[in-house]
Amino acid sequence: MLTTAIKPNTYQDSVSLMLLSQQLSALPGVNKVSVMMGTPANKDILRATGFDSPELASAQPGDLVLGVDVEDGTDVAYVVTQAEEALKNQASRSASSGLRTARSLARALKIAPSANLALVSIPGQYVADEVAGLLDRDLNVMIFSDNVSIEDELQLKRTAHERGLLLMGPDCGTASIHGVPLAFANAVSGGNIGIVGASGTGVQEVMAQIDQLGGGVSNAIGLGGRDLGADIGGIMCLQALATLENDPTTSTIVIISKPPAPAVRKRVESYAQRLTKPVVAVFLGEKPDVATNGNLVYAYTLADAAARAVELAGRGRPAFGPTQRWIKALYTGGTLANEAAMLIRDQLGVIDSDPAHAQGYVLRSGGHEIIDLGDDAYTQGRPHPMIDPTARAERLPAVFDDEGTAVVLLDIVIGFGAADDPAGALVPAIEEGLERAAQAGRQVVVVASVCGTSRDFQGYADQVAKLRDAHVTVLPNNAAAVRHALALLATSSRPSTAGETEPTPPRIAQLLEDGPTVLNIGLRSFAETLATAGVATVQYDWAPVAGGDSRLAGLLRALDNA
Amino acid sequence: MLTTAIKPNTYQDSVSLMLLSQQLSALPGVNKVSVMMGTPANKDILRATGFDSPELASAQPGDLVLGVDVEDGTDVAYVVTQAEEALKNQASRSASSGLRTARSLARALKIAPSANLALVSIPGQYVADEVAGLLDRDLNVMIFSDNVSIEDELQLKRTAHERGLLLMGPDCGTASIHGVPLAFANAVSGGNIGIVGASGTGVQEVMAQIDQLGGGVSNAIGLGGRDLGADIGGIMCLQALATLENDPTTSTIVIISKPPAPAVRKRVESYAQRLTKPVVAVFLGEKPDVATNGNLVYAYTLADAAARAVELAGRGRPAFGPTQRWIKALYTGGTLANEAAMLIRDQLGVIDSDPAHAQGYVLRSGGHEIIDLGDDAYTQGRPHPMIDPTARAERLPAVFDDEGTAVVLLDIVIGFGAADDPAGALVPAIEEGLERAAQAGRQVVVVASVCGTSRDFQGYADQVAKLRDAHVTVLPNNAAAVRHALALLATSSRPSTAGETEPTPPRIAQLLEDGPTVLNIGLRSFAETLATAGVATVQYDWAPVAGGDSRLAGLLRALDNA
Repeated sequence: MLTTAIKPNTYQDSVSLMLLSQQLSALPGVNKVSVMMGTPANKDILRATGFDSPELASAQPGDLVLGVDVEDGTDVAYVVTQAEEALKNQASRSASSGLRTARSLARALKIAPSANLALVSIPGQYVADEVAGLLDRDLNVMIFSDNVSIEDELQLKRTAHERGLLLMGPDCGTASIHGVPLAFANAVSGGNIGIVGASGTGVQEVMAQIDQLGGGVSNAIGLGGRDLGADIGGIMCLQALATLENDPTTSTIVIISKPPAPAVRKRVESYAQRLTKPVVAVFLGEKPDVATNGNLVYAYTLADAAARAVELAGRGRPAFGPTQRWIKALYTGGTLANEAAMLIRDQLGVIDSDPAHAQGYVLRSGGHEIIDLGDDAYTQGRPHPMIDPTARAERLPAVFDDEGTAVVLLDIVIGFGAADDPAGALVPAIEEGLERAAQAGRQVVVVASVCGTSRDFQGYADQVAKLRDAHVTVLPNNAAAVRHALALLATSSRPSTAGETEPTPPRIAQLLEDGPTVLNIGLRSFAETLATAGVATVQYDWAPVAGGDSRLAGLLRALDNA
Repeated sequence: MLTTAIKPNTYQDSVSLMLLSQQLSALPGVNKVSVMMGTPANKDILRATGFDSPELASAQPGDLVLGVDVEDGTDVAYVVTQAEEALKNQASRSASSGLRTARSLARALKIAPSANLALVSIPGQYVADEVAGLLDRDLNVMIFSDNVSIEDELQLKRTAHERGLLLMGPDCGTASIHGVPLAFANAVSGGNIGIVGASGTGVQEVMAQIDQLGGGVSNAIGLGGRDLGADIGGIMCLQALATLENDPTTSTIVIISKPPAPAVRKRVESYAQRLTKPVVAVFLGEKPDVATNGNLVYAYTLADAAARAVELAGRGRPAFGPTQRWIKALYTGGTLANEAAMLIRDQLGVIDSDPAHAQGYVLRSGGHEIIDLGDDAYTQGRPHPMIDPTARAERLPAVFDDEGTAVVLLDIVIGFGAADDPAGALVPAIEEGLERAAQAGRQVVVVASVCGTSRDFQGYADQVAKLRDAHVTVLPNNAAAVRHALALLATSSRPSTAGETEPTPPRIAQLLEDGPTVLNIGLRSFAETLATAGVATVQYDWAPVAGGDSRLAGLLRALDNA
């Protein structure tokens, strides 16, 4: 039996309605229940699927409409009661999450006067008006909603830019600010990789892969999918790049987008190349012609972009002195030493000044030195350095005391046959070496990778933790460690001031520095998640003006402006 | 005070001696103790560092020599007692590990008649003779020792090849057979990636990276560093490739080596291309000109090689029927769908037959179909498929019932905002679909990646486990999943019989099938590790014939052969 029921003036967001429909459809004796707001389009849908009634005809956009298909003998009133019950439960779940709610914007801002970010997920046709008001109140805005016209997007982004605010979206599904995941986002480790993304799941995939590689994310700023198109011209992309360039927690930047419009691409690339930080660009859908272009590194896939970013990101910008120009590598694994030599030779185009490779030197060029301590020259009368780590520990002081040393590069091989605690055996020499170099006014960076697994008896995670505690930067594999060492030298040689980057507008800087206090407008689940995670959040239970009657809303607006 | 002490006829392996030296040097009142066998070279070292005495002059290669440097007042006899104590402890540690020991090869083989692999780590000059005897007794051999002449290596490898035995090494630091790590090796997950490696830490790095990417290793066969040089000509490399081609637990092969000699390279590459399994080659030190060459995929770094291998390795060779030619992808993440389309377009060179991309089709070419279920066409009146996984579950039956479907490709996006259990919601449809296809005589392969982290509330590992339990092949990221799907189609289209590969000789096949029973000759620590891990192992406490007097040993051998 098909019938309809109406609950007047009961606005609910679309996700709540979907969940409610599913829940009611699962009741005994019920075939299917569709719960929708009474907009003309929704009423058409209900009519097309067989529902029709005088109540439906007279339902308003602000009314809740239930299209109920029950088996004969099932009481429709029972279904409506269940719906009311579910709505009440939803409200009390919100309350129990500690979420504060308001029925008007003014009230919401009274509850949370320090709100610095509005998260907007209301139907697209209402977005332009609502967001214009939010920007007026100097709020940064993330628009999750889609179905916003490109003209409205351009106008909103121009306004935001003029007022020094971030406008993420429309159709921005993912962002992460100051470690707070917004809308659809993964819980990743904090770190120093900043992301600028015109793609929701693209940002999610890159963030998740960075996390899996042991890296972390500082801020991920969403743009919406059209920002790098010809119409918008990358307004927010440039703002986000400038913001991350100035963000002290970010040391490397990733841009994720489908291939930008040619003119926009030129603008974005030349802007990115003026930054002091390395930038990884993945313009998904095209095979990059070149691998690098100054500080710009191109990636083909999302996973590649994450890997490159982890390789490039370090503990901020190294402050190498004028003498510190070289990588000094002490390896225990011969093949790992050779891999390092290959990567350094290929990237720097250097020629080995000692091709005979005497004394275990695998590369010697300028002051770059890669030594394989497993070479016969070092194992006469003593065990291999994988078995006995003291041989390497004894050589470390001289490396730290060398004025030319910028980066000390190490491999830690664990597993059967290897020493019980190869990382621990090096830590005292590393700590003392760093300390002595610091006293001499030199910041030396130690970079390492651990070759092994969580099943190895030395414990992969333990070895990594020991190294990190001793201020060693640990990369997920040897090639990544070598590339990181090279990136440190390259970054250090770039000018240290970003002459071309304007300071970050105060409202954006404050958002990144303090973290978001969120005004959530629309989908309650976003606010509940944030509140549960301890993020200061207020839920504005938005409903369309004049119950969604656009003619009436227009009249009201006209009166308001009069 | 410098002095020497001698323990006649007490052969110890070099690692035991190193550890003993360290232990004694740490005693109170002791400056340094060097414990060595009394070979002429070692006696020279001791003399050069200030030790000299009539006892040292008369010490024989089979005698243990202690060079003792103590503070005045420390009793040298005390140091010698401590040394004896330490040697006794070592012996009892061996006993407590359950390790059986023998003082002759004949006795060792009587204890372990089923031994099928000898692990040899005696001084290099004794290797050729000893290993010749082991091959005579039909034992596969892994030679850890270095300092073996290239002529001896060639002779031993020829003999091994003729007798149908594996000869890994000399200077082979790493191998893993049937899940048993040998010498220096990491504890990695079992799996279907077989490795052929002419490089110790190269094999370790690739194995460890495979493990970190969620893949696993079937067998890793070491070659020693010179096998692909012009002198040896890749004898064992070809044998290892043939062995892994025939090994039912291996579905993908990785070759790791420095760049081979040109003639050998040609031989190895053309051999590899005749195999039915995909082969990843990393010839470390050169940038590959091409990415692929038939079933041969080239990698630049060790980490790249591991990533490619994980992408290529599946659950063995798929048995697709003649109609099964296409990838059917149902995506919830728009960017992930676009990444899939890019990779398929680029690899297959296909042109989209539906560039308008109606109905959420991101790619449609031949029967290849990639649909973005987050497209507006699917989200009118229902929540986004990341929120509500039922939309995709409902579409799966038709995909499994499609006769053209070879591979079903899926993304599972977790994190805030996403469904509580997106993998679990698909499992019933996947299991039923696979079952129905199987009943219709079609093997369909489901490939997926999970976009998320271990911190996401759905739990990355949980989602992966649910998928794997439902026979889904899970790759570490979306690009890897797409490449795996493409590899399945490519592998399936190769001839299913390896016309050119001879059957694996029975002694090698038995080693891989049953796993190693190890006869350890040399470093006791290798045997202790194996015994502790529950591997059937017997320790042959090898000592040089005639106490290391090579003239006398020659005479004895001549008598023996007479």
